[in-house]
Amino acid sequence: MAKDRMAALDAHWRAANYLAVGQIYLLANPLLTEPLKPEHIKPRLLGHWGTSPGLNLVHTHLNRVIAERDLDTICVWGPGHGGPAVLANSWLEGSYTQTYPDITRDAAGMERLFRQFSFPGGVPSHVAPETPGSLHEGGELGYSLAHAYGAAFDNPDLLVTCVIGDGEAETGPLAGSWHSNKFLDPVHDGAVLPVLHLNGYKIANPTVLARLPRAELDELLRGYGHDPIHVSGDDPRRVHRDLAKAMDQALDRIAEIQREARDGRAGQGGKAQSGGARSGKARSGRGRGGTSEGAASGRPRWPVIVLRTPKGWTGPAEVDGEPVEGTWRSHQVPLSGVRENPEHLRQLEAWLRSYRPEELFDAEGRPTRLVLDGVPDGPRRLGANPHTNGGLLLTSLPLPDLDDFAVPVDKPGASTHEPTRVLGGMLARVMADTAGQRNFRVVGPDETESNRLGALYEATGKAWQAETLDTDEHLARDGRVVEVLSEHLCQGWLEGYLLTGRHGLFSSYEAFVHIVDSMVNQHIKWLKTSRELPWRAPLASLNYLLTSHVWRQDHNGFSHQDPGFVDHVLNKSPEVVRVYLPPDANTLLSVADHALRSRDHVNVIVAGKQPCFDWLSMEQARAHCARGAGIWEWAGTENGNREPDVVLACAGDVPTQEVLAAASLLRTHLPDLAVRVVNVVDIARLMPQGEHPHGMADSEYDALFTADKPVIFAYHGYPWLIHRLAYRRTGHANLHVRGYQESGTTTTPFDMVVRNRLDRYRLVMDVIDRVPGLAVRAAAVRQRMADVHTRHEAWIREHGTDLPEVAEWTWSG
Amino acid sequence: MAKDRMAALDAHWRAANYLAVGQIYLLANPLLTEPLKPEHIKPRLLGHWGTSPGLNLVHTHLNRVIAERDLDTICVWGPGHGGPAVLANSWLEGSYTQTYPDITRDAAGMERLFRQFSFPGGVPSHVAPETPGSLHEGGELGYSLAHAYGAAFDNPDLLVTCVIGDGEAETGPLAGSWHSNKFLDPVHDGAVLPVLHLNGYKIANPTVLARLPRAELDELLRGYGHDPIHVSGDDPRRVHRDLAKAMDQALDRIAEIQREARDGRAGQGGKAQSGGARSGKARSGRGRGGTSEGAASGRPRWPVIVLRTPKGWTGPAEVDGEPVEGTWRSHQVPLSGVRENPEHLRQLEAWLRSYRPEELFDAEGRPTRLVLDGVPDGPRRLGANPHTNGGLLLTSLPLPDLDDFAVPVDKPGASTHEPTRVLGGMLARVMADTAGQRNFRVVGPDETESNRLGALYEATGKAWQAETLDTDEHLARDGRVVEVLSEHLCQGWLEGYLLTGRHGLFSSYEAFVHIVDSMVNQHIKWLKTSRELPWRAPLASLNYLLTSHVWRQDHNGFSHQDPGFVDHVLNKSPEVVRVYLPPDANTLLSVADHALRSRDHVNVIVAGKQPCFDWLSMEQARAHCARGAGIWEWAGTENGNREPDVVLACAGDVPTQEVLAAASLLRTHLPDLAVRVVNVVDIARLMPQGEHPHGMADSEYDALFTADKPVIFAYHGYPWLIHRLAYRRTGHANLHVRGYQESGTTTTPFDMVVRNRLDRYRLVMDVIDRVPGLAVRAAAVRQRMADVHTRHEAWIREHGTDLPEVAEWTWSG
Repeated sequence: MAKDRMAALDAHWRAANYLAVGQIYLLANPLLTEPLKPEHIKPRLLGHWGTSPGLNLVHTHLNRVIAERDLDTICVWGPGHGGPAVLANSWLEGSYTQTYPDITRDAAGMERLFRQFSFPGGVPSHVAPETPGSLHEGGELGYSLAHAYGAAFDNPDLLVTCVIGDGEAETGPLAGSWHSNKFLDPVHDGAVLPVLHLNGYKIANPTVLARLPRAELDELLRGYGHDPIHVSGDDPRRVHRDLAKAMDQALDRIAEIQREARDGRAGQGGKAQSGGARSGKARSGRGRGGTSEGAASGRPRWPVIVLRTPKGWTGPAEVDGEPVEGTWRSHQVPLSGVRENPEHLRQLEAWLRSYRPEELFDAEGRPTRLVLDGVPDGPRRLGANPHTNGGLLLTSLPLPDLDDFAVPVDKPGASTHEPTRVLGGMLARVMADTAGQRNFRVVGPDETESNRLGALYEATGKAWQAETLDTDEHLARDGRVVEVLSEHLCQGWLEGYLLTGRHGLFSSYEAFVHIVDSMVNQHIKWLKTSRELPWRAPLASLNYLLTSHVWRQDHNGFSHQDPGFVDHVLNKSPEVVRVYLPPDANTLLSVADHALRSRDHVNVIVAGKQPCFDWLSMEQARAHCARGAGIWEWAGTENGNREPDVVLACAGDVPTQEVLAAASLLRTHLPDLAVRVVNVVDIARLMPQGEHPHGMADSEYDALFTADKPVIFAYHGYPWLIHRLAYRRTGHANLHVRGYQESGTTTTPFDMVVRNRLDRYRLVMDVIDRVPGLAVRAAAVRQRMADVHTRHEAWIREHGTDLPEVAEWTWSG
Repeated sequence: MAKDRMAALDAHWRAANYLAVGQIYLLANPLLTEPLKPEHIKPRLLGHWGTSPGLNLVHTHLNRVIAERDLDTICVWGPGHGGPAVLANSWLEGSYTQTYPDITRDAAGMERLFRQFSFPGGVPSHVAPETPGSLHEGGELGYSLAHAYGAAFDNPDLLVTCVIGDGEAETGPLAGSWHSNKFLDPVHDGAVLPVLHLNGYKIANPTVLARLPRAELDELLRGYGHDPIHVSGDDPRRVHRDLAKAMDQALDRIAEIQREARDGRAGQGGKAQSGGARSGKARSGRGRGGTSEGAASGRPRWPVIVLRTPKGWTGPAEVDGEPVEGTWRSHQVPLSGVRENPEHLRQLEAWLRSYRPEELFDAEGRPTRLVLDGVPDGPRRLGANPHTNGGLLLTSLPLPDLDDFAVPVDKPGASTHEPTRVLGGMLARVMADTAGQRNFRVVGPDETESNRLGALYEATGKAWQAETLDTDEHLARDGRVVEVLSEHLCQGWLEGYLLTGRHGLFSSYEAFVHIVDSMVNQHIKWLKTSRELPWRAPLASLNYLLTSHVWRQDHNGFSHQDPGFVDHVLNKSPEVVRVYLPPDANTLLSVADHALRSRDHVNVIVAGKQPCFDWLSMEQARAHCARGAGIWEWAGTENGNREPDVVLACAGDVPTQEVLAAASLLRTHLPDLAVRVVNVVDIARLMPQGEHPHGMADSEYDALFTADKPVIFAYHGYPWLIHRLAYRRTGHANLHVRGYQESGTTTTPFDMVVRNRLDRYRLVMDVIDRVPGLAVRAAAVRQRMADVHTRHEAWIREHGTDLPEVAEWTWSG
């Protein structure tokens, strides 16, 4: 590399390092125009220095290749807790000032940049939604590489660079993410360039990958399907040279892989399986053995850069006699007593001056030409690439007329359908209609078919780049259904896909969506903050279809029974979270249509895959879902002219069935009782108006549920959730909720509701117990209900099936 | 191998396969003494056949090596959804009948074994707590290998075999678990032998690892630190021979590694780094490069067996013209229409008879000598090894006198301590006092020091087998603090450790414990079921210390703020779950002591690491924690002789501080107001008596909180949790809860409580707004409080620190 290019790179890196240190420490005197004094120092020293010089290095070198190659790239900063680094670079390239005009690219702006960092009313310490060019918060570690792959899917011209810290690399989700390359199509997808940054330490410990012998690490990375390119050292000049060379090698190799694949030369035997980003020359095919000998997959080996530099590089070597640079002690704030300790103050000043700020910034505090030499312009800048503000690129999905997929319902309960199968038809149409624009994906942990969404395969295949066999079905290099047995990968890919301006749906077994509890937390936080930033354009919502739910785990039992995800998300920002429990096929269609049109939400849809009664026509379903909750007059016995004696409420498909069966029993056995049936689809409707945008007014609540009549509420999940939502309502004291009470095993569907006291007979007993005066008058009816329970117990133990009167029950109005 | 050994192995395998199929299909005619008829078939066909022949094969071969080597081994069955296989083997070896005497080892017992499987009132379809020899439910995939390592820690004489399905291998947690070998000490720990079972398919898709070229898979496994031994094929004879050989090789190599390490010959240069389970001979040291050149770690390469056999092996090759054996179609029930479809019935009978049951069972249905030849006896049997019923081996921890660690408290609030640092001293003593028995571990994701538990390092090191450098601190091969940046590994290891009869604690950042939401679900389910099984001995509880909590994320901000784990666990079985929020150092000691003594619980302790006022002396703390909730008379102004005007309640350290500060403000500004202060440590005390073992009686609740006075409750987490717990209480309508409302960023500690309306001034305003008559009388006081908020806003934006009156506040009684 030419000496002046090297000098420019180093100047940029020094400038970024200077700005990172400044953000952690300085309130004033940003250019060190006077000797540093205690009053220039922030009263609370916060932030993460250790990872920052490495991030600055990668950013500096990405600038070079972007400018030289006119590269369309974004970077996912796995160690995003090194916020000062990314902010520094954005300020240097001008994207920060473009986004926040008050933070000017001069001394005054520099002072504001420093002051605002981790300061009340300022910006958070991590890469966050507030950071231009970011789509990933680096606080909770594990998801950077999955986000990167999601961003690359269906973005054939995009390179997604992904810095992975060696701390993050220890997490399970990250370890599993390496295999994402088996799902990335070099023709229709972009490329991911992982940069594994081994700075050797996490908070207080060495890292596993940094302490593997290099040969072992190489085996690991090759086993992940990558060809490693190493850059290592603590001499800046040498590292600049080697990293520049490594980036060129990697990018050349990626270009070669893409060219080969796109010219149709891949997939023809072992050739594409070889490669050689390190040498630049093709190597001979690798030996393969065992039963995996078969058709070569043509899957390329993608490059990975392994960057080994000291933690806290260029920071204080020693503090108070302890080594700091190159150790875990540089993780956060290496000099902690700067205001009080003159030696620390002196060290800080020496540290800052070591970057030679006078070469980096002119007298007005503007970056010098040397620093900005070769920094890219416009939307190619990492802080301005529109893929990181994906809403800018978002186009609406072509959503079909739901009537094309609706099931015909002349009268309620006369037929059954598998709701998710009906939805599958609609999703298949969306998939087919986006074949050209390729901006819709369905992800799932190997359950798309099991969840009855198999119609999708009429429109696309399952993404797969590894070996295929004759017996395989629906695998395709360019498939837009993505299945892997990892909820983490499904979630991470989909998040990356949505954050870059596309659409999607995650179908999961209800119980196992808890695996991504923490990931959805972070995504909700991201959306909550993004909604408050005017420059962030709205994104397509993250849509969950939770099926194979708690009530129908016939094959799997207790370990697969958990309806608590709804509780989990309802703790989070109400602006973002929506939860729907459609009771049948047509309501599922309506809800899914709404979710796919929505923006900046997390929509949780809980719906069964087993045959379910069709209650509402498409027209009725639309109207019911628009209200979110409503009286089903046809199901009750109010006769319209007085308040009911009791309200039977339901939310969820199985509870709806049991409530309707209970209403039917009451109609037969207690024909004088005025029973109202209320179905709730949109569970947040139960919340007070001020607490959730969908919360209903008290008057509306009372009109539905009455202010003083007993309400027996059959709910899909944990019963106390309904109390938590409705505790402020006038009639709350009369609310009695049945739901899942953590009683489960492999048993019959009806036994599940009996065990959890949600069954029709129990509900009738609840009504008798709670409607004043009924206990005596209806004692015989109550006994009949109890008798059915007794018969049920004996019958299932004998026959292993449900009572015929339950198995054959249909609604008779 | 001798022919007759081979014949015996094959007979055992066939017998297990026969019994697995029988469990899925048969209600009667277990020995096929008459032609199979529809009425012999279960009405609902449930279970997972696909993985069963592989599990049977491994079990059969483990029997051989156990018997031949008198091996103390247990097996973690990752594909535990193949329940019929493990049940079959347990029945064959007699451990099933020993555990469940009614399931005799004869025809009658076989019929009951078949009938009960996935049958109402019977046993679940997975390996579950009900299964003898199990410590792992294979329903939620990802945790088998972490469980195996946890079981092996500090069990030097134990071999833990772990079957990993290739589906499970795609999950993040499993992918991350391979590196557990960097934490396993060959001297003080046992060994783990992973058996990666590649049957090629998950539910409906090929698996990633099965479709890697063998060379690439080998690189991956070597990169994980293992030496692979392959067994592959579909010819039983050849597979038996190869698997027997592979097991012998693996066990010889493990024995050699352990011998070398225990003879003190490991750790001396590169030699131990080499190895060669495949060749049995030492290979030359591996080349290493980069900065990882340094002291050789002496870490051995442990063997892994890669077993490649067809999914659903020995089952129907084709059904209805579709290939089944060797494809995903054999995942659950390959022949699904047996009762209705005569061809399916015929195929089932042929399938069952293909195992030649007449050679396997005598006329009374007892396994023949051929089948039982070489099956181990007594506690060596996999279904009877006491390590899988760890409570049998559990000894109590030597817990110290808490007074040795208590902080002195002469009067409340006169001093501060970091509660977790105080706890660290006590844990260090436990660690020191278990140096001999080695049955206590503390796990954490690289946060032990950050969480102020560093005193532990005076008693033990951090487990580490990889390379070490001079700058490292506290690393030790035999350390019993285990730190890795993976909550999944921490949780999985600790679960395995507890399930095998030891003790431990998991210290985690509060927000990121959500990463293991799903794992704790499964552990709670396990404990709930185990408690109902008289033969399962109680286990030490799973103890969480959640610290670095929501209110003090000064360095990290919004991504690190989430107190919802408490909500999550409180949805689960109340017999198992306990949640404690000790308000200071001494209460934390008391609660931790209680948790470490308890059995079969999941104890969640939420406590801060930042300096916190000392409110209670050790004696007071003991009494307060024993009650779980109580009036702090010294903090209120009731003066004992009348009901209070208002109750200020608190749970959690920061809320307690704010409530006491509010009480202090009220004492000053509204001295006539009778204020009661109630502190809640044990949050389940708020629940109704019938809903949680710790729930308090209504009379007790009313005595604490009154039946009709306003209660302002400052809670650590999401405020509605308190309503969900207390909604049935008489005074619930007067309950007003403040807590975290998902408003956060990097800001000052006091600004966090202001943002979430939990601060002292807001609480005083709440009191004024809610106590009848006070609104007018105390309008000026209310305004003063509002003025402080205004001053606060201006002050933090100017100074970046909290108002001096807040920062310097102390309780003055």
